[in-house]
Amino acid sequence: MNEIKKGSTVPEPTLRRLPWYLAFLKMAAARGEIRISSTQISRAINVSAPQIAKDLSFLEISGKTRIGYDVQSLISVLEEYLGFTKIRKAFLFGVGNLGAALLHDKGLSQFGLEILAGFDVNPRVVGTTIQGVPVYHIKDYPGIQAKIDASIGILTVPVREAQKVAEEIIQGGIRAIWNFTPFRIHVPEDIVVQNTSIYAHLAVMYNRMEAKL
Amino acid sequence: MNEIKKGSTVPEPTLRRLPWYLAFLKMAAARGEIRISSTQISRAINVSAPQIAKDLSFLEISGKTRIGYDVQSLISVLEEYLGFTKIRKAFLFGVGNLGAALLHDKGLSQFGLEILAGFDVNPRVVGTTIQGVPVYHIKDYPGIQAKIDASIGILTVPVREAQKVAEEIIQGGIRAIWNFTPFRIHVPEDIVVQNTSIYAHLAVMYNRMEAKL
Repeated sequence: MNEIKKGSTVPEPTLRRLPWYLAFLKMAAARGEIRISSTQISRAINVSAPQIAKDLSFLEISGKTRIGYDVQSLISVLEEYLGFTKIRKAFLFGVGNLGAALLHDKGLSQFGLEILAGFDVNPRVVGTTIQGVPVYHIKDYPGIQAKIDASIGILTVPVREAQKVAEEIIQGGIRAIWNFTPFRIHVPEDIVVQNTSIYAHLAVMYNRMEAKL
Repeated sequence: MNEIKKGSTVPEPTLRRLPWYLAFLKMAAARGEIRISSTQISRAINVSAPQIAKDLSFLEISGKTRIGYDVQSLISVLEEYLGFTKIRKAFLFGVGNLGAALLHDKGLSQFGLEILAGFDVNPRVVGTTIQGVPVYHIKDYPGIQAKIDASIGILTVPVREAQKVAEEIIQGGIRAIWNFTPFRIHVPEDIVVQNTSIYAHLAVMYNRMEAKL
């Protein structure tokens, strides 16, 4: 069993590349490959072999020179290291367009995220169930949180509500916020915020398209 | 009318911050504010005032010292600059969990992205309509593309299909790929690729959570 460094802060670029390696390794495993070298990974996914070796060095799994990594072991270690094997309880705040969309994404549970409830104020969604996930009024959050103790809050409320709702849910016990709003929320130091603005990615893509015309 | 630099390549960090400013400005406008300074924006969203001024300098709109920016003008210029006012035709490839979720996100059209069709091979989704968007068999893509001429392909296929489908859709005329798979696709130089791996963001968040325990 490989020992995994707990509580270490790995550089974000490394953490973002590790899932690429994982995806590639799963494909290699499906093709029946037993061992793989960082050079082979490099050729397939356009990251330099030394960079891959350096990224994987955080895992404390060793690739043997000339022999490479054991594919199945590397998959297991990566999945555990990335936190995809542990299930974390989450609530989703703001069942609008993007919020409802995320409730439809069953893929999230394969990456360790279990959304147990949605919260909103809109009477058209409160009381409904989306893909098996019940949607409650936000006023019921403290009581439900006291029972379920979810650690992650997915924030998909309108921009103008982002700060207020962030404060409320932290008050109730949420310890990490996955913020899909384009608003930069302010939180206490012990709270984790992960910003994911998919619309900002659109802006980057549009700009690159214009530049290539 | 402010002239907008067309075809310029703005640094990606700037492009990612501009939507934050836009979100904040819309809130300020809703509160009835007429003028705003970079210092005011800075205080609200945790980016330094000089950085904001520098980012906004790409827009060729000038903030007057002591008076600040005109809120409405800045909103218009930002929306146009970010490409959110121009509608671009898109197809979605892979109507699985995440793909179907994105079809449910009506918010995308507010950011200039109109998804006109989905494509898949699964008989359970081919022939259906999700949120008004028809889902076709992938074999019908060349014919439909010839009629509609979509420029953007949203890639939400399984990892092992990513490269093959990317090549097919580029062949048919797609010029930019919004890649939601964790696979690093290889494309010709004139094709734009925007990678958005929301699961990689989850890994980053999990790691930060462990570090704070």
